[in-house]
Amino acid sequence: MTPAHSAPERIVVVGFGPVAARFVDELRPAAAAGVAEVTVIGDEEQPAYNRVLVADLGVGRTALASMRLADPDDLASHGIRAVLGTHVARIDRSRRLVHTAEGGPFPYDRLVLATGARAAIPNLTGLNPDPLHPVLPHGVTALRDLADAERLSAAVRGRKRIVVLGGGVLGLEAALAASEEGATVTVVHHGARPLGRQIDPGGGATLAAVLRAGGLRLAPNARATGIETDDDGAFRALLLEDGSAIDGDLLVLACGARPRRELAEGAGLGTDAGILVDHRLAALHTEHVFAIGDCAEVRCADATCEECARGDGPSGLIAPGWRQADWLAASFRSRLLGEPAPAPLPEERPGVILLKARGVNLALAGNVQREPWESVAWDADDGGRSPIDVSLWADPAHGRYVKMCTRKGVLEGFIALGMPRAAAELTLLFGSGAELPADRSVLLRLDGPESSLGAPGSSAGPESTLCRCAGVSRGTVQEAVLGGCSTVEEVSKSTRAGTGCGGCRDSVRELIEQHFAVAAA
Amino acid sequence: MTPAHSAPERIVVVGFGPVAARFVDELRPAAAAGVAEVTVIGDEEQPAYNRVLVADLGVGRTALASMRLADPDDLASHGIRAVLGTHVARIDRSRRLVHTAEGGPFPYDRLVLATGARAAIPNLTGLNPDPLHPVLPHGVTALRDLADAERLSAAVRGRKRIVVLGGGVLGLEAALAASEEGATVTVVHHGARPLGRQIDPGGGATLAAVLRAGGLRLAPNARATGIETDDDGAFRALLLEDGSAIDGDLLVLACGARPRRELAEGAGLGTDAGILVDHRLAALHTEHVFAIGDCAEVRCADATCEECARGDGPSGLIAPGWRQADWLAASFRSRLLGEPAPAPLPEERPGVILLKARGVNLALAGNVQREPWESVAWDADDGGRSPIDVSLWADPAHGRYVKMCTRKGVLEGFIALGMPRAAAELTLLFGSGAELPADRSVLLRLDGPESSLGAPGSSAGPESTLCRCAGVSRGTVQEAVLGGCSTVEEVSKSTRAGTGCGGCRDSVRELIEQHFAVAAA
Repeated sequence: MTPAHSAPERIVVVGFGPVAARFVDELRPAAAAGVAEVTVIGDEEQPAYNRVLVADLGVGRTALASMRLADPDDLASHGIRAVLGTHVARIDRSRRLVHTAEGGPFPYDRLVLATGARAAIPNLTGLNPDPLHPVLPHGVTALRDLADAERLSAAVRGRKRIVVLGGGVLGLEAALAASEEGATVTVVHHGARPLGRQIDPGGGATLAAVLRAGGLRLAPNARATGIETDDDGAFRALLLEDGSAIDGDLLVLACGARPRRELAEGAGLGTDAGILVDHRLAALHTEHVFAIGDCAEVRCADATCEECARGDGPSGLIAPGWRQADWLAASFRSRLLGEPAPAPLPEERPGVILLKARGVNLALAGNVQREPWESVAWDADDGGRSPIDVSLWADPAHGRYVKMCTRKGVLEGFIALGMPRAAAELTLLFGSGAELPADRSVLLRLDGPESSLGAPGSSAGPESTLCRCAGVSRGTVQEAVLGGCSTVEEVSKSTRAGTGCGGCRDSVRELIEQHFAVAAA
Repeated sequence: MTPAHSAPERIVVVGFGPVAARFVDELRPAAAAGVAEVTVIGDEEQPAYNRVLVADLGVGRTALASMRLADPDDLASHGIRAVLGTHVARIDRSRRLVHTAEGGPFPYDRLVLATGARAAIPNLTGLNPDPLHPVLPHGVTALRDLADAERLSAAVRGRKRIVVLGGGVLGLEAALAASEEGATVTVVHHGARPLGRQIDPGGGATLAAVLRAGGLRLAPNARATGIETDDDGAFRALLLEDGSAIDGDLLVLACGARPRRELAEGAGLGTDAGILVDHRLAALHTEHVFAIGDCAEVRCADATCEECARGDGPSGLIAPGWRQADWLAASFRSRLLGEPAPAPLPEERPGVILLKARGVNLALAGNVQREPWESVAWDADDGGRSPIDVSLWADPAHGRYVKMCTRKGVLEGFIALGMPRAAAELTLLFGSGAELPADRSVLLRLDGPESSLGAPGSSAGPESTLCRCAGVSRGTVQEAVLGGCSTVEEVSKSTRAGTGCGGCRDSVRELIEQHFAVAAA
């Protein structure tokens, strides 16, 4: 069944988002060597772009050109075919064919599903209830594709009133950006505070105050029940359970995303929240089919696997998807080109949530619900484990809040609001699992007047990760700067740092400035 | 009626505690000049000693010689007579006579009452209910005089079980000292945490954990109803309202103090909590009678006086009493010797509570009940005033807790636990009313590994107060060290610094060491 060495292996990738783009990028050596024939099929007319920046595009902060993650001509020159604007209708596993509405079929030896996710559409009176084919009324938009960005852009340019439904990171980022660009923005969310159960009450209260001070209106403890439309069927107000209504010109739905798994379901593959794959990213109980990125859910067939028992579905973050793309491409190259097999994919640590805007800098990860005095009051051993210690710095009048939850000195969760350097350092420490200094207040000093990046007490050595999305180390960026890159864009192009959420772009800029300051001195 | 210049003014001081000792000390120039004839009458056989150190004496940490605040022979050589072991029975204001049980009477031109306070005896079944003449059962003691110290000492030497009733500073200090010296100590207190309403819930919880870690047993939320005695009538157990009992060999009553005002009441002077005096420390509605220290309550006859409306009775702290003694003596000297009149006594700021022991360092002052998020949540203007901002550092696993409550950047209250330098700095800032740095976390840096006293960011200049009890500046102590004082005792003798609560003795030692380190370098 394995193709003869003379015939190239036909690899078909369904979906052409950031993860698919990374995967085919990493397959270039195999395509160039003639051992693989790679086809990537996207249903948008655009090749892959960075979805994380759709809100930035909508408010005019970035241009589509800066968001692009793939160039079909360049791919074609390496023997990789990109098929755009093409909807995959069905997969025939027995014949190994991908059928599209427009034509085809595309035969494959290996099929990689990178279908991603779509915006979750809440169940509101007046919205189309079919989640697979939402037809949203005029004046209602999600924030996932370029058409969404254009809708947001029109509202911001017109300085309209925007209602954002959802107090998660995506909603807050869009709201902050739109507000800064002149729109009047109300964020409507469940619970007493934005970020809901991801943040703790004190951090949430401080964040809410910072957001309000930054010009956002917040509508907490709100349950939306429907929308009110004008005579033309366009959005006019969001209706709440308590009978009140919030007027607006554009409703932005920021209620999370759902994996696109219907294609896999139609092909009889196992799914739960996403398409089920094992630790080698292979779909369960079948052959030749793989899934990566937002559509994939790692849950192997071994019922005793602790890692899978702990897992809670696709993360929705870009970095784990890119790690999967890298790994799967490396495993393909290993088979096709004889490269060494990649080490098993490590278990994903919980992601770090970053929220950056003018006047807002938040990093948040892990479990932060415990309060400082709980561990003291109940000196319980938590099932034989050491207790969780909590250190807290709260200065809400200055918008600062740092919480560190540690077990044996190692972070299990943290919040850093209004202290960018502490945020960066804690993000590093959370990622590395290194022990914190016994005097936790050392972390607060990083944001002091006399500190600078790489200050004493910082663990930001060259080995440390600078861009978490793309997995690029500080040293790699420094080498790129030494090698002549003098703008963030050049560094991004050369190293991929900064191509994900963009949260590390300030650090990249700082390294460039440091280099030129030293060079000039 | 004023005595002729040829006849010295007869000044009689009733009571010979620390405040009386300070007062007669400051009258030496008048006595030496022959314009005053000073008599001080104490009912103890001992001349004045520092009551604050009674618990330290009881656990063997200090000797009586180090506690003495007066030397009758020395006073006599300056023309001041000390009458010891003499109980004043009655004051005849019309004839200006002080009658004693043992003899007399002592005629006066000016009478100064410095009768101090006595331990409050709680209303417990099995204790003598007469508060003026308590006869406590064997195995029960207060902590005010040398006999009390001896009872504590016997229990500590015998490594007995000690039950301390009362969770205030006095009780905690005694408990910590006795525990460190080997006794088994339980502190029984009202409310969920020691220090009750003086501390906030988070600080109280952290303090409780620190105290427990230091070996103390705490019995919170306890209401004592009586004591159980053995066949000889000696204390055996403290009985609680919930029916439980705490066994012990010695019960230490640390339930506060009550001003001794019965002499004044018998003389028809106005009293409330203490003996009422005006802002010149003169008893109300009479002439020639004054009161200072723990027995005095400043509440003038002017019903519209805001300062008196704010006051809440005698503070029970040594520093305000010493300031009164200084001021009254200066006003007497002004009249008798023609010295310039002293400036009016400033209003007492709320006192700073200090609790120092091995592993425990707490400073606490003002109102600390507000929580960081309250000022954010309720941005109320508090009757036209600026809101109170609260900054908080909580690291209970390391026994650290710092809370700063500010209005317009000036401290209204603070807690510093486990961070001695932050405690010292906040005590200074609280006393001076200076504005805090905008970045409050600067205060936490003082306790960092690289800091030292007088580090950048500290306001501990030579003008700053080092000994709050005796009102001695840092510069005065530095001059004494430069002048040859090489031990804390020599500095205390020369400057009075460290003669009160002793909380500044570490700072004095540090200045001495700094001097000799520099001198040796």
